[in-house]
Parts: sequence; structure tokens; C-alpha cells
Amino acid sequence: MTDSGARPRVVIIGAGFGGLEAAKALRRADVDITVVDRQNYHCFQPLLYQVATAALSPADVAWPIRHMLARQRNVTVVMAEVQAIDTASRIVRADGINLPYDYLVIATGATHSYFGHEEWAMYAPGLKGIDDATQTRRRILIAFERAEVAESEQDRQRLMTFAIVGGGPTGVEMAGAIAEVACQTLAPDFRRIDPRTARILLLEAGPRLLPALPERLSAYATNALERMGVQVLTSTVVTNCTDRGVEAGGRFIEAGTIVWAAGVVASAGGAWTGARTDKAGRVVVAPDLSVPGLENVFVIGDAAAVTYTQDRIVPGLAAAAKQMGRYVGGVIAARARRTSASSIEPFRYRHQGDLATIGRRSAVVNLKHLHLTGLLGWLFWSVVHIYFLIGLRSRFVVAFSWAWQYLTFQRGARLITGSDSSGRQPGS
Amino acid sequence: MTDSGARPRVVIIGAGFGGLEAAKALRRADVDITVVDRQNYHCFQPLLYQVATAALSPADVAWPIRHMLARQRNVTVVMAEVQAIDTASRIVRADGINLPYDYLVIATGATHSYFGHEEWAMYAPGLKGIDDATQTRRRILIAFERAEVAESEQDRQRLMTFAIVGGGPTGVEMAGAIAEVACQTLAPDFRRIDPRTARILLLEAGPRLLPALPERLSAYATNALERMGVQVLTSTVVTNCTDRGVEAGGRFIEAGTIVWAAGVVASAGGAWTGARTDKAGRVVVAPDLSVPGLENVFVIGDAAAVTYTQDRIVPGLAAAAKQMGRYVGGVIAARARRTSASSIEPFRYRHQGDLATIGRRSAVVNLKHLHLTGLLGWLFWSVVHIYFLIGLRSRFVVAFSWAWQYLTFQRGARLITGSDSSGRQPGS
Repeated sequence: MTDSGARPRVVIIGAGFGGLEAAKALRRADVDITVVDRQNYHCFQPLLYQVATAALSPADVAWPIRHMLARQRNVTVVMAEVQAIDTASRIVRADGINLPYDYLVIATGATHSYFGHEEWAMYAPGLKGIDDATQTRRRILIAFERAEVAESEQDRQRLMTFAIVGGGPTGVEMAGAIAEVACQTLAPDFRRIDPRTARILLLEAGPRLLPALPERLSAYATNALERMGVQVLTSTVVTNCTDRGVEAGGRFIEAGTIVWAAGVVASAGGAWTGARTDKAGRVVVAPDLSVPGLENVFVIGDAAAVTYTQDRIVPGLAAAAKQMGRYVGGVIAARARRTSASSIEPFRYRHQGDLATIGRRSAVVNLKHLHLTGLLGWLFWSVVHIYFLIGLRSRFVVAFSWAWQYLTFQRGARLITGSDSSGRQPGS
Repeated sequence: MTDSGARPRVVIIGAGFGGLEAAKALRRADVDITVVDRQNYHCFQPLLYQVATAALSPADVAWPIRHMLARQRNVTVVMAEVQAIDTASRIVRADGINLPYDYLVIATGATHSYFGHEEWAMYAPGLKGIDDATQTRRRILIAFERAEVAESEQDRQRLMTFAIVGGGPTGVEMAGAIAEVACQTLAPDFRRIDPRTARILLLEAGPRLLPALPERLSAYATNALERMGVQVLTSTVVTNCTDRGVEAGGRFIEAGTIVWAAGVVASAGGAWTGARTDKAGRVVVAPDLSVPGLENVFVIGDAAAVTYTQDRIVPGLAAAAKQMGRYVGGVIAARARRTSASSIEPFRYRHQGDLATIGRRSAVVNLKHLHLTGLLGWLFWSVVHIYFLIGLRSRFVVAFSWAWQYLTFQRGARLITGSDSSGRQPGS
């Protein structure tokens, strides 16, 4: 793709938090960078649940990669899906395009894992991309529409039952948001059903919600969700998902909508390079985040298994991916300058903290020197997320949307669009 | 659906401009209204072209019907697709739901017409609904992405050719907007192609653009588009659409993207009632907009052929549909009060004027006492469209988006989402 002669060629696969940060860290380096992504946009995953619950539009949380990097003249952006990497001849193959590299950064993220039951995917979609989010929005809104015209009380109850699988931040945020949609946004708009009677279940296999947070904050989240009407079921393992509901904790729960927020598995980076992966599919990388044996190939973000203190793996957070991207960009820049490799420090992860929002005026914040809950936590969460959005326009639109929603209880993106890719008819 | 005993039941099929206005006109009537639509939202069609060209998000121009009518207590909203109408037993059948009626309003609008060549639809999608608009947006943005990585100059040129079929308001608006996307929004973001060299063709079968407007304004529009780099080809009949381009005026033009803005045909209202239709599929209605022979069934908006002065048919405009909806709501209210039918005046259409925007600071406005072009026309057009949007939130967000775009040349919704329903790969 590049024809610059002697300048080292850097290919970055994936324009998520890690990939973009790696590209930016190479801003002043004398290299030619190609960023390849199968989408044309960078998606701000931490707010996808707000798209799934009709609070924000896709365009509020996603921006064209090409535009984000337009001013960085050493970057070319290619929209294509990578099929294979030839590590011997150092070529990335994507939709018939060959991208030769001197340095390769694999930042392909993670996708949902159904623990070997991929057939559950069609009944219980996850929330990793924009299309997932509009699909989930579609299912949630259609469930209420179908309940309004349901013939039997049993159908109505099933349609108005929402099961969220997984009690991490995404599960907590989805459960809280669906409760708000039902009790606040939709309540006045129906005639035959009362959306406030919707049953929202949050199913967590472990003993408590938000296991990455201190117990006190888990307890706070459980309490806050229960006050909003969410049934929190911990130590409840989901053993099956069907078109009628979920089997969990040994019994079958009829549910019209299931949202998967449980497991993730790393994308194909490991398979492409032949590198050793852990059981979540992450490539076990060297201290400089390179693939052992392939010193010019790096894996970062959710696709990498990086150990930090006491054998803990760096968590799959945006902040972690950014740190790795910045680090790898620095390593490549140093190597391109022919600095001796021995002078490069190993990657060190600095955990900045954990946040999860629960609902209106309620969030948990766990930073090193700051623990917040309730209104203060929620304000902190809001400000942090606005700050991390890309561009003034999105910041303004999202802040306006949140203020509007806060004041009116209305959500601006209550559209049932597209068609259901699973062919599942929640009402039939 | 209703169980109110003696109160007359009104069923309205379609919640476009006409159907909603009919429902609202029955606000104080002692009737039970059911509004049935296959979508959950009302779509502001005049701004769909802005969704198709990444200026606005779908949620900016579409609102949940249920919410729009939430406060009108005599209305029930049903999301379902009508399959048939039994005019003998007075029942509408929709997705297994039976909706009995005393009065029926058919406000099902129009859809694209390919003049008997329905196979063109997959190569040349039209612009009637939200999903059409995001699909067209997808195709336009993907064409530039594919051009950026095209192997041959011929492929690149084909991918960067956009053919818009039909020189009415939608065609003019699409051509102008695509020119702006190419020359302003995308220009700085590509490395190998220069989006400003995109070729945009506007193909019109008749002798001039905007035939509903005076010749002077047609000439103005042609001139303005040509200054923006659009090639306007009038008296050019499209005789074929394929995956490689369009055949027009006797020659084949290679084009990566085709947008259909030519013909429309009324929806199935006529087929459902057995009424006589004109060649565009519109039901030829009686002076009170009822179906001849079925005095309790009305057809309004784009689905109806209503004659006004000198055998002209009322045009397919939002304003016309609203006038018909208001009128029919009044007729039903009067009949429900048992006012004698003889006292009801026939429907009289009042043409308020025509507007079309061409691009930044350029629009044509043709009202009875007001003819505007250029900046003044554009400001008038903008204010009118903001005014007619539903709800303070949308007005604010759209006004902000336009102001932002005016100042920065950027469009906020440059996302390639969903998958191409035709299976067509513009780049392959």
C-alpha cells in the first residue's frame, strides 16, 4: 500500500481504543502507518448500552476513523476485513488487499463468548458494536409493542420479562437502563399494558455483582438496582438460552428478551499469528507486548493477556487498551529510530479505577483515592464520559441528550429499525 | 380491539403526515381510534435525504408514534402490518390482529415505482423510509472507501460516479448533498483519491428540473447544481439499471452508486378495498375523500388521487396529506355526532407552495406571494423545516447539527452500519 521506500511500514489492525492510541503515539515518528478496520468508525463501547436503550443515537458514540486521523499525514486508513497474516513474508491480507509491514500491531479487541454454546447468540445478543446495540434496542422496544397486543396473559408476561446475563458493568448498566425505559420513558405511552410491571432479571454466576469492585460497592449496586425494581440473582448460572427464555439456577425463566453481558473471548489475533493464547483466546505476550518469537508483531488491548501484579491479568478496559497502544507506539517509534532494544522498559499497567452507572443519579466510582456512590458518583461518571468522547460536537450532543433525558425522562432514539438478524420473532 | 360499546371505532392505517393529522383532528370526538402502522415511528420524509447523506441521525427525523399520541386518550397505537381489509364485515387484519371499524382511514402513502422494472430496486434504492436512508448512506460512504483501495483507475472512476435518477425535489436535494459530502466533508480525509473529483449526475427524463416550479426557479436550480460540480442531464430517460451503472439517453454510464428519486406508486390501499385506482395506483376518491361505494372508508395523502383545479391531481406533499387528514378527521367527527352528511363540504386543497434545497446557502422557494432563491431561500427553507419537526428536542438537535455543519463542513453521522440488503458489493 505504501511506496515510501525506506520508511518503516506499520500496520495497525483495529481502530478501537488501543489501535487509535498506537497510531497517535506514532504521530511524529518517521514511519508510514496503515490503520485497517472492517468498520469505517471507531466506537465508544462504554456508552453502547445507551444506544441499546434508546438514550443516544449511534452517531453520538461513533466517529469515522478516517476523519479522526485525517490530520496525521503519516496515516492511511483502509476499511477492510483482515483474513490472514503471513508472518513469514510480513503481509496482512484483507479483502484482497495486501498490506506489507515492518511492524504490526494487532488491536482487534474481543467479542462475546457463549462458553461453547454459540447457538445461544441468536437468542441472547451481546453488546460489542453499533449493530449489536441497535439490534438490542429493536428487541427491547418490540417486546413492549408485542406485549401491548398479546392475546394471553402468559404471552404478555413473557414478553415483558427481560433477562440480562452477566453482572459486570455492562450487565448492571443494561439492567438499570431497561428499568428506566420501562418505568419512566414508556409508562405513559401504552394503553393495555403497564410497562412499569416489566420484570427485569440480572443473572450473575458469581456471588456478587461487579466483582472487580470492593464488596461495599457491589452491595450498593445491588441495592440501587433492587430499588429500581430489578431482580438481582447472584450465584445463578445460566445453563441454556432458547427462544422462550433462559434456564438459570436449575429452573426455566420465560423471557421475551435476553441480553448477553457475560463472557468475552479475544478476536482472531492469536489464530492469525499462531501464538500461544490463554483460555479466553488472548495472546500471551512478552513484557514489551510483542508476540514471543515475533518481535515485530505486537498484540494490545482485549486481544492480549498481560500479567500485572500477583498474576492478575490486565482487565479489558478502555484505559488499559489506551495505555498499551501508547506504549507500543513508543516502542515502535524507538525501534524505528534504531534505539537499542535493550533500553526499552517493559509495559507497566497503571489501574486507574472502575466506574459503573446504575441509573438516574446513581453510579459507583472506585478510584485509588476516590470512592463515590449515588448522585456524586453519577455526576463524576457523566463528566468523565463526556470528557472521553471524541470531538466537541459529540460532547455537546451527548451532554444535551442527558440533560434533556434527566429533565423529561424521555429518550430521543426510540426507533425500531432494521430487521432482526436472527429471524426470531419475540411475539410469535 | 376496543370494547367501548356504542362509541364509533375509527381505524387509521398509517401514521404519516395524513394519518396522524386525522387522528389529531378527532381529538375531541367521542370515538375510539386505533392507529396501526408497521413501524413504531413517524418519519419526517422531507429530511430523509439528510440522513442518507450523513448530516442527521435517524432519530433526529423520526419519533415514536405511541409517544406522539400518548396524551390523546381516545387513541390506541398498534404496531403491525396490515395484510387485508374486509370491507363487508368491516375488519382490518394485521399480523393476526383483527381491528373492527366503523370508520376507516387509509393513509398508507406511496413507495418507489420502477416503471415495471422492479429488478432495478436492488441497484437503485429509493428514499422513502429510515432504512432506505441508512442503506443509501451506507452505499455512498462505502463507494469512497472502495475507491480509496481500488486497483484500477477504471474501478476508481466507476466507484466515484453517483447517478441520481429523477430531477424532482428529492433528486435535486440528493445531488446537492452528495456534492457537498464529496467536496467539503470527505475531501481532507482520503490519501489516494481526491473526493472532489467525484462525478455526480442528475438524470431527469423531462425537459427541466423541478417541473412543479416556475421555469425561472428550475433554471436557478440547474445553475446552482452545476456550480457545485453536478452534471445535470435533462430529457435523459433511464432505460436500465445494473450493478455496473445506468443506461440513460442511449448510452451506458458506469456508476458505483445509483439513487432512485424518480417515480412513486401508491401503496396497497386500492388493492385492499377493490376501489378504482389511477395508473399511479392511487384510489380515485369521492369529493369527501371516501371510496366510491364505501362511504365509511376514506383514502388520504399519497394513496389518494384527488382532483383540484383543471384536472390537476393534488401533489404528494406533506402539506397536502395533512390537509386531507384534517378534513377527514372533521368529516368523521361530524358523522359521529350524527350531523347530516349533506352539510359536509367537499375537500378543497389549498396549495401552499413548493420548496427545495440545493445546498449550503442555496434553495428555491415558490409560495403564492413569495419567491426566494439563494441564501434567503435557504434560510426560509431551514426555518420552515425546523418549525415542522416534532418536539423541542429534535428542533434543537437539528438546528445545532445544521449550524455545526455550516461552520465546520462536517457531518455528524458518517457511519456505515447494517448490511447491504441487496447483497451488492459496490467495490467488487
